[in-house]
Amino acid sequence: MSNGLLNQINSPADLRNLKIEDLTALSKELRQFIIDIVATKEGHLGASLGVVELTIALHYVYKTPNDLLIWDVGHQAYGHKILTGRKNVFHTNRQLEGLSGFPNRSESEFDTFGVGHSSTSISAALGMAIASQLKNENRHHIAVIGDASIASGMAFEGLNHAGVTNANLLVILNDNAIGIDPSVGALKQYLTNVKKGTQKQDNIFEALNFDYSGPIDGHNLPLLISELERLKSVNGPKLLHIITTKGKGLKQAEQDQVKYHAPGKFNAETGELVKNINNNNPPKYQDVFGETILELALKNKNIIGITPAMPTGSSLKYMMDAIPDRAFDVGIAEQHAVTLAAGMATQGLIPFCNIYSTFLQRAYDQIIHDVALQNLPVIFCLDRAGLVGEDGATHHGVFDLAYLNCIPNLVIFAPRDPIALRNIMYTVQLGIDFPIAIRYPRGRAHIKDWKKPFKSVEIGKGVCLKKGKSIAVLSIGTMAKNVELAISECKFSDEIGHYDMQFVKPIDEKLLHKIFKEYTGVVTIEDGTIIGGFGSSVLDFANKNNYKKPIKLLGIKDEFVEHGTVSQLQLSQHLDVASIKREIDNLRLIIDNG
Amino acid sequence: MSNGLLNQINSPADLRNLKIEDLTALSKELRQFIIDIVATKEGHLGASLGVVELTIALHYVYKTPNDLLIWDVGHQAYGHKILTGRKNVFHTNRQLEGLSGFPNRSESEFDTFGVGHSSTSISAALGMAIASQLKNENRHHIAVIGDASIASGMAFEGLNHAGVTNANLLVILNDNAIGIDPSVGALKQYLTNVKKGTQKQDNIFEALNFDYSGPIDGHNLPLLISELERLKSVNGPKLLHIITTKGKGLKQAEQDQVKYHAPGKFNAETGELVKNINNNNPPKYQDVFGETILELALKNKNIIGITPAMPTGSSLKYMMDAIPDRAFDVGIAEQHAVTLAAGMATQGLIPFCNIYSTFLQRAYDQIIHDVALQNLPVIFCLDRAGLVGEDGATHHGVFDLAYLNCIPNLVIFAPRDPIALRNIMYTVQLGIDFPIAIRYPRGRAHIKDWKKPFKSVEIGKGVCLKKGKSIAVLSIGTMAKNVELAISECKFSDEIGHYDMQFVKPIDEKLLHKIFKEYTGVVTIEDGTIIGGFGSSVLDFANKNNYKKPIKLLGIKDEFVEHGTVSQLQLSQHLDVASIKREIDNLRLIIDNG
Repeated sequence: MSNGLLNQINSPADLRNLKIEDLTALSKELRQFIIDIVATKEGHLGASLGVVELTIALHYVYKTPNDLLIWDVGHQAYGHKILTGRKNVFHTNRQLEGLSGFPNRSESEFDTFGVGHSSTSISAALGMAIASQLKNENRHHIAVIGDASIASGMAFEGLNHAGVTNANLLVILNDNAIGIDPSVGALKQYLTNVKKGTQKQDNIFEALNFDYSGPIDGHNLPLLISELERLKSVNGPKLLHIITTKGKGLKQAEQDQVKYHAPGKFNAETGELVKNINNNNPPKYQDVFGETILELALKNKNIIGITPAMPTGSSLKYMMDAIPDRAFDVGIAEQHAVTLAAGMATQGLIPFCNIYSTFLQRAYDQIIHDVALQNLPVIFCLDRAGLVGEDGATHHGVFDLAYLNCIPNLVIFAPRDPIALRNIMYTVQLGIDFPIAIRYPRGRAHIKDWKKPFKSVEIGKGVCLKKGKSIAVLSIGTMAKNVELAISECKFSDEIGHYDMQFVKPIDEKLLHKIFKEYTGVVTIEDGTIIGGFGSSVLDFANKNNYKKPIKLLGIKDEFVEHGTVSQLQLSQHLDVASIKREIDNLRLIIDNG
Repeated sequence: MSNGLLNQINSPADLRNLKIEDLTALSKELRQFIIDIVATKEGHLGASLGVVELTIALHYVYKTPNDLLIWDVGHQAYGHKILTGRKNVFHTNRQLEGLSGFPNRSESEFDTFGVGHSSTSISAALGMAIASQLKNENRHHIAVIGDASIASGMAFEGLNHAGVTNANLLVILNDNAIGIDPSVGALKQYLTNVKKGTQKQDNIFEALNFDYSGPIDGHNLPLLISELERLKSVNGPKLLHIITTKGKGLKQAEQDQVKYHAPGKFNAETGELVKNINNNNPPKYQDVFGETILELALKNKNIIGITPAMPTGSSLKYMMDAIPDRAFDVGIAEQHAVTLAAGMATQGLIPFCNIYSTFLQRAYDQIIHDVALQNLPVIFCLDRAGLVGEDGATHHGVFDLAYLNCIPNLVIFAPRDPIALRNIMYTVQLGIDFPIAIRYPRGRAHIKDWKKPFKSVEIGKGVCLKKGKSIAVLSIGTMAKNVELAISECKFSDEIGHYDMQFVKPIDEKLLHKIFKEYTGVVTIEDGTIIGGFGSSVLDFANKNNYKKPIKLLGIKDEFVEHGTVSQLQLSQHLDVASIKREIDNLRLIIDNG
């Protein structure tokens, strides 16, 4: 296929020189360009394929970047990036020092607002629209938001405010009935009724004082363009409801929209996924969670599973399929998910609330106010804790240890391997009288043989993984693996002890006393921020107990971490094997010299 | 007035023995009982007066505590407390070791869920209702929520989920068109149209799959009772819309609903407020903020003020009255408030986003993801930081230093007095290229003469308030006052230095080096959690730089702090003058002996 049209476009100004009749041909080129690159470089596929026509129409009709365009979540913005001067570097998408997988203000003036977490676009666009009003600047402000994202509370707050302004704000509801997993909730049902024509009155958006139009076919370019042109002269807040198909234009992606959200490598022509040859990999932590909660829930009828819109990503889907009345996808609603769990816990249920570490930031108040303050036994499973890799700065789960550490009553545990994850899940469902956060990383573990008989974990106890005498390395969670390798590479590895403290809180003070008495120096390591995290607690312990030995804290530095592979990012944060070894050696030198 | 009926009621079971004809008389007694006690003991008045009839009707119709009743926010639950066995201790309301000002699970089995922050009730009640379903328990679940609270995103998330369940959930929308300040937003306008009969279709709640009834007069007891009886047999999620008057039954409270939300002492018969005799008090920090932002905004046209539903409490009202197009009350929508500010900042505006410290927990993700990650110059003014007193555990602003400290790019400042607050506000509006959080306490400052000419504050610099040589006390914010008094009471006060570090982040490393070199011991003090806060940063600095001197960290312990006066709570947290003096003396002893 020729890229005759696409090759001419280095900015939306070029696009606007095309004849409207050429745009459909361009949409085919753009769609194929996305498919070809994502097929080998990986990334988010389905969402961007679904908005190819919309992307072209928006940049054709509006004078970007003077008109301000915000893509909610932003994983659908590949076409936008390609049309706004980044075509030739698009193959670096999501790679270290390459393009970000999401719009990013530091990357392009066309990326007006950094996104990654959902449902922020209406608020940000309204802020911009009010700014334009105050500055008497005549420009348009457009937020493109999906039907899953608009159901989140934050989006409602934005609509509720916008509805009483006369801001020049256009919200485009990109309704494809799916987020990463199929959309849920009453609003989704409402939108379905609208599409079917069975919702005759009760227009929610008109009730909120928006000018509503649609639903229209979001793949019909001439229709999109004429409707957007018309809306330019509609004053005040307005919402255009368009219907699109996620994965549009690639048959398999349309048919299996969940799998083709971010399919990994695939054959660009046939769409067939490139199979992972090694079927004997260790398990993903997600599957350890998913299989274990199902195994436990089949025996313990009080166990509940809750996910805010991540049934596939978290693997709660296994339980949802097997025990649908006790496993809930509540949509992109982390706040609700946490307080729902709290309500259930008051009635003796045992809710496992599975939320990605980075998204739990959305429910911080609810953890403090609804769970911890009432000391309710809610079990938080924090998926994708630590460095997540290619999704980058918006998605790393590196703040959790710090923001949870200051909350009274809350227990914080990080398993070093799948067996520990399995055992803590087993332990807490036996009955606890406190809330607990269990945090584990994205991706595969290091051991294959994980389905061992359950064993109870003693709350607040660390374990010695290797004895030593000069330096003790205290790790939390899966950093244990790098520590193990680093110690094995040290010249004096016999001298180096290794402890998995397991619990950031309550920290094992008995074990810490023993360590500080027996060793000459201590290294702590965590894949969370150094500020306020696990190492900080060890330091506080040492200070309180008047241990004056050298302590080195390793963890995430006080900076946002970009995208790249986990290994690359560990290297940049000095959490890789070689860096840990170097730090151990350094401390040993200091001790020898001091 | 006789309390003949009220005196008979020690639990709702007694209430249910009354004849329906007696309930109106009871409502008069209950209303007067609330007025009489709040008039002298202070507390939240208007909200509880508005739901006297509803409270009686609910406990009359439903079999509490088997049927589960949740009061959203909960400051309207005084009548509920009085009818559920706490009449004789109600005079201890909000006092140390007395009743909590909000429903509290540890206080009564009738308080099914602890509240304080708004908009949690639907999620919690839905969790309970699902639990009842799973356990085959036949009970009702009722969430009472105001029109200001239901407009918050979290409430929408609860409705959106509930609408696709068949849970036995009744949401009672208590519509009085006011929160603490008058309600705002498109939903409020919608509800107004419903009440006026001008909203003929577009029923938002029916669109979300709720059975909707109302609006009905929430002060008409027989009507309320018959409607609640009818709703008992309506299956699935249902919403009853009732219209009430905040402050009902006390003329002044009805007329000035904002002032009588929590009016302080007043004459129970006339309603007249007890005037504060001393007109020569130092200013409230709130007024320093409110007057200063107005003063600055009159000169700098880029300044914007934003408050989520606290125009009076924050004193942003001064700017809203004087420059209405640049000062926004966005309703109970902290998430939206923060991202709206971020959007404005991208366009060169200078948003001052004023949020109570405890409520900023609701927008934690937005601070990280929308502001700090993009390094946008949003100015957060965190009101009611530290110990807030009688509102208690749900409202203390003690986590902010810890949860903000781990966020890259964010500057954190705490003024020790009104002049410092004024000067930092002046400084940041001159232009900054980073976000900043300025946190200050509830209530009055210690100095009267605060309207000095503006002076620039050097970012990241601490100041020496008193030189010394043995022990340096490092304080942050208004704890400086207690430290000053404590030092003056020390026997060796000449030896004790005092530094206001001003910035928790970036911390003044140059000054810290000087201090650690010159002094033998260091005390840090903050009215935030010891874990992860200011002292923790000082400790980290000392460890990194190999200073081995004794360091004592003072601050909020790892426990939730109850209600009481600020002085009482400072005492319990060892942040009072005598405790600080004792800690200084102790450290001096350790140094002398070591």
